[in-house]
Amino acid sequence: MTVGGVPYRTVWMEGGVVRMIDQPLLPHRFAVRDCGDHRATAGAIRDMVTRGAGAIGVAAGYAVAQAALEAPADGFAAFVDRAVLLVKATRPTAQNLFYCVDRVLAAVRAERTSDAARRAAVVEAEALADEDVAAARRIGELGAGLLPEGSRVLTHCNAGWLAFADWGTALAPVYTAARQGRRVFVWVDETRPRLQGACLTAWELGQEGIDHAIIVDNAAGHFMQHGEVDIVIVGSDRIARNGDVANKIGTYEKAVVARDNGVPFYVAAPTSTVDWGCASGADIPIEERGAEEVLSVRGMLPDGNMAEVSLAPAASRARNPAFDVTPARLVTGIITERGIIAPNRLEDLRRP
Amino acid sequence: MTVGGVPYRTVWMEGGVVRMIDQPLLPHRFAVRDCGDHRATAGAIRDMVTRGAGAIGVAAGYAVAQAALEAPADGFAAFVDRAVLLVKATRPTAQNLFYCVDRVLAAVRAERTSDAARRAAVVEAEALADEDVAAARRIGELGAGLLPEGSRVLTHCNAGWLAFADWGTALAPVYTAARQGRRVFVWVDETRPRLQGACLTAWELGQEGIDHAIIVDNAAGHFMQHGEVDIVIVGSDRIARNGDVANKIGTYEKAVVARDNGVPFYVAAPTSTVDWGCASGADIPIEERGAEEVLSVRGMLPDGNMAEVSLAPAASRARNPAFDVTPARLVTGIITERGIIAPNRLEDLRRP
Repeated sequence: MTVGGVPYRTVWMEGGVVRMIDQPLLPHRFAVRDCGDHRATAGAIRDMVTRGAGAIGVAAGYAVAQAALEAPADGFAAFVDRAVLLVKATRPTAQNLFYCVDRVLAAVRAERTSDAARRAAVVEAEALADEDVAAARRIGELGAGLLPEGSRVLTHCNAGWLAFADWGTALAPVYTAARQGRRVFVWVDETRPRLQGACLTAWELGQEGIDHAIIVDNAAGHFMQHGEVDIVIVGSDRIARNGDVANKIGTYEKAVVARDNGVPFYVAAPTSTVDWGCASGADIPIEERGAEEVLSVRGMLPDGNMAEVSLAPAASRARNPAFDVTPARLVTGIITERGIIAPNRLEDLRRP
Repeated sequence: MTVGGVPYRTVWMEGGVVRMIDQPLLPHRFAVRDCGDHRATAGAIRDMVTRGAGAIGVAAGYAVAQAALEAPADGFAAFVDRAVLLVKATRPTAQNLFYCVDRVLAAVRAERTSDAARRAAVVEAEALADEDVAAARRIGELGAGLLPEGSRVLTHCNAGWLAFADWGTALAPVYTAARQGRRVFVWVDETRPRLQGACLTAWELGQEGIDHAIIVDNAAGHFMQHGEVDIVIVGSDRIARNGDVANKIGTYEKAVVARDNGVPFYVAAPTSTVDWGCASGADIPIEERGAEEVLSVRGMLPDGNMAEVSLAPAASRARNPAFDVTPARLVTGIITERGIIAPNRLEDLRRP
């Protein structure tokens, strides 16, 4: 996609440096963050400089490739193994992170010399980024078929191109339908606590000139009741093999409310999001983040400076689960790069 | 209830001045706002200096009493009628506002002299405040029976004592159970856009020493899925005679999610909240407020000053319905001062 007309990916590697769009600065400022070594990249994933299922995975793959480039010939494997543990510890829920780290690690281990392993790591990390882009583009093509002229889509959080290397998943069908000449309107859940909807999804849609309105997370049900939502499309951080879907906190509520109003509820995600080791959503670890994300919020002051303001009594505590699990029974279909699949038919994907 | 040990009502009248706790300053600062005439009181209702179903009603009753005190003997009725129109235009959804204004107006019209009408207006406005307190106290007694030792209650927005003259509705059972010696824990939905949960409910609970945790509105479903919510209690701004309930935006979503998890969902409201003129929720007008409430948020800077920060792209628009309607089918019971009633049995209340 483009920013001010210039094509960008969300995260990419130049030499040994991983570069990424600095997402906490959006929508108020656009800047690129450089991560000079694998530790810096891991830190950027943990601190959510880049975030979103696919972008986390691609960045994590690059981080392991960086580690391979940094590792001394003497003790090469141990250095890379330590880096893998560090990267895997950054975000516990996102399946793509583990998928990408393991793919690059396997590429490293398949080589007999450290030089060959370094080359293989970079090639594999780049392949993962390209696969992410290709899958997202295909998800856009398939999902666009669900969006006739005038469709009103509700989405939660950001599963747009900023959440992947490019295109995104939940928003890829919107972008594709718009480029095919159809009018599409998007209801943007602001998505507390970190407001990825208001900050990132709205910014992306604005860059593409797509009509949208931001709503508080509380309001989605009201607009569904009034027949103003035709379809819900969200992304996913991990899908269990029974079709249960982990995604940003609040996704489950949207799914229940969509069901109550007969609104189809789709999840858009590459097949790499499926964790075959998880029998059901109960097996997916749910990251709980710091209370300060709930008790305060960051935004732009009238003078253009950024500030964090406190929203609650100093003595009150908060709980902050970052994800929830939507049971498969509430999911109309999963839009993957290999087709739109009923959640209870995911196992079909394991066949060649 | 008390603030720092001093007993307060949320809104009261001293001479011709209506005094109210300045709610937009909470939880960061406690102050009382004085409204010297009926126009100032109407403005304070419109600007949500006081808010909440009962407090709006009591303040509106006082405003009409102020108008009667201000009205010249010559043109008395016309002055009061204009004031009534002004007060009724402040907030379109809250039933108690119309109920209280009409009660004071009827008291005025029953008198033959302007002096007698002025006295009657003040007496009726004070009676409404006292009835509000008595109903809330009784709701607390009846509702406390739903809260055994260790109950974990989820509430949305603020239907505590700040939303009424005293005690509140949704929180009155919590306060009563706690004073009866039982441990009660409250999940506090922060309640975007205006954060009445994080700012007011959490502050009230803190003042009473009741254990609570603030969560983003997105997280309620997650904690219900994990068996950590025993009961939902919310307030209401207007109830249709078929039992459909208008309340703060997001209430409907909580009700749907509670149903999906088998969690009982109660509405606590005085019978004055029932609008017998509304056959169903479809007849309840839903206030839509300004987009800026969604696109920005007010909070306290680290230096203790208040500031408003922008959360979204400057070019993005927002929609901001302030209330939604929860269908009667999702309501387990309505806790009124006359008993806990099934929503489809509201008509029983019309019998003497």
